Amino acid sequence: MWFTEYWTQNVGITIKAKEIKRIKSKYQEILVLDTYEFGKVLVLDGLIQTTEKDEFMYHEMLVHPALVSHPNPERVLIIGGGDGGSVKEALKHKSVKEVHLCEIDEEVIITSEKYFPEISSKLRDPKVKIFIEDGNKFLDEEESKNYYDVIIIDSSDPVSESEVLFQEQFYKKVRNSLRENGIMIAQTESPILQQEYFKKAVKNIKKVFKYTQVYVGSVPSYPSGTWSYTIASDYIDFLKIKPDLSKFENLNTKYFSDKLYSCLFSIPEFVKKLISEV
Amino acid sequence: MWFTEYWTQNVGITIKAKEIKRIKSKYQEILVLDTYEFGKVLVLDGLIQTTEKDEFMYHEMLVHPALVSHPNPERVLIIGGGDGGSVKEALKHKSVKEVHLCEIDEEVIITSEKYFPEISSKLRDPKVKIFIEDGNKFLDEEESKNYYDVIIIDSSDPVSESEVLFQEQFYKKVRNSLRENGIMIAQTESPILQQEYFKKAVKNIKKVFKYTQVYVGSVPSYPSGTWSYTIASDYIDFLKIKPDLSKFENLNTKYFSDKLYSCLFSIPEFVKKLISEV
Repeated sequence: MWFTEYWTQNVGITIKAKEIKRIKSKYQEILVLDTYEFGKVLVLDGLIQTTEKDEFMYHEMLVHPALVSHPNPERVLIIGGGDGGSVKEALKHKSVKEVHLCEIDEEVIITSEKYFPEISSKLRDPKVKIFIEDGNKFLDEEESKNYYDVIIIDSSDPVSESEVLFQEQFYKKVRNSLRENGIMIAQTESPILQQEYFKKAVKNIKKVFKYTQVYVGSVPSYPSGTWSYTIASDYIDFLKIKPDLSKFENLNTKYFSDKLYSCLFSIPEFVKKLISEV
Repeated sequence: MWFTEYWTQNVGITIKAKEIKRIKSKYQEILVLDTYEFGKVLVLDGLIQTTEKDEFMYHEMLVHPALVSHPNPERVLIIGGGDGGSVKEALKHKSVKEVHLCEIDEEVIITSEKYFPEISSKLRDPKVKIFIEDGNKFLDEEESKNYYDVIIIDSSDPVSESEVLFQEQFYKKVRNSLRENGIMIAQTESPILQQEYFKKAVKNIKKVFKYTQVYVGSVPSYPSGTWSYTIASDYIDFLKIKPDLSKFENLNTKYFSDKLYSCLFSIPEFVKKLISEV
């Protein structure tokens, strides 16, 4: 049995599976593949979101740079991320007192807890509060304003429900939900195969925040195997700060490190060129 | 028409092609695909070697780190690399007086000159001398001894004719063919999907050279999209040198830069762990 994800109309990844489970939620079709190469794989509407083999590459690079950049992150909001991988990484930081997870599709959480016990292992931690809500509407609520230290946009690709999460209006709400020293980090697609989405996201983030930086990392199960992340703040100039080394201790990472952090923004020239074009 | 390369038995990349040309050489089957996503694609025995879209990522990262690390590279040997991409990058360095290309399969050169005119554009440069020979035997010749400043192992995957290029005996010959300050750089496969090949190459290189370092870069058409390169020398301690900035001028790169070079060895933790296991 082979599952193929078409990254574009003209290229895809094909993965051999022992078993494919299909779940239909209110929002999307959820597949759980049991594969030989990537272990269990979570697929939403045909697109790979999480695999046991490489989830650490994505979640570590999405979560830790923002959390070490913030002087004292206590309150974290994750929008999307129903698999629980970002929650798991965020809770590794001792300063974190509460993690709010805002996932539109409860079925993703249920599926992850059933089939991905390690990735979802921290979803029921007492510090975690789960909101089954549209992230865009969640940020309209009065209690969200000026509340969070770090907001993590762990969205799926900018189609259907997730499209709004790549708009300027949405990033403005994110900014308004951050308190002093607040930082937003967003996954911003492949800078190789999804350059238009990437540029759109970076352009809109730049319009809203004072400081914006882009970095990249490997995720072999995602389009092109190279992924982009955009970090932004009105307070933190990422090029100037030097986080204390103690912030990197006990993170138990398999990808991220203090050395990697210090080189985070040394990105390939073609990515810089794309950013200069937005 | 779809062309699929199986990266392992359990995962592959599938690419839509307008046209597929087949050429049978003495050593291998050569395909030239005309694709929508990657432009023209050169395939040897079923494995993608070069694509118009991303060849710069591979060739720049293979060639430039070694050439800027050497104080004054004049004589360069490329083993493999019949497409000409490494020759093109090497000749961007003003100090280079001669480039020897040792390619076992003349048909690769002929095919590249016919279908990849830009990538192969420097193969007939007066500084270039082409040897149609087995790289392993070429290094046995007396004239090769103690001759080169930089030797670039631009091999295909370690199967059939290329397998010997991953052996300790071969790296010893490389070392003996380098003169003072000499540097070897080798492509060493995917650290994600070809970990055994990667570890074997690094292990053997470490046995032979005093200084060995590994770095990684993106190549979306190669297995996992993340590629490893191993650089080695008996003279140059890569962690201590700081090449003059003038060496980075006029390279006209789309991936490599001085900033990237200064962060070259800040690699993901899982790659460091693999290296520690060899």
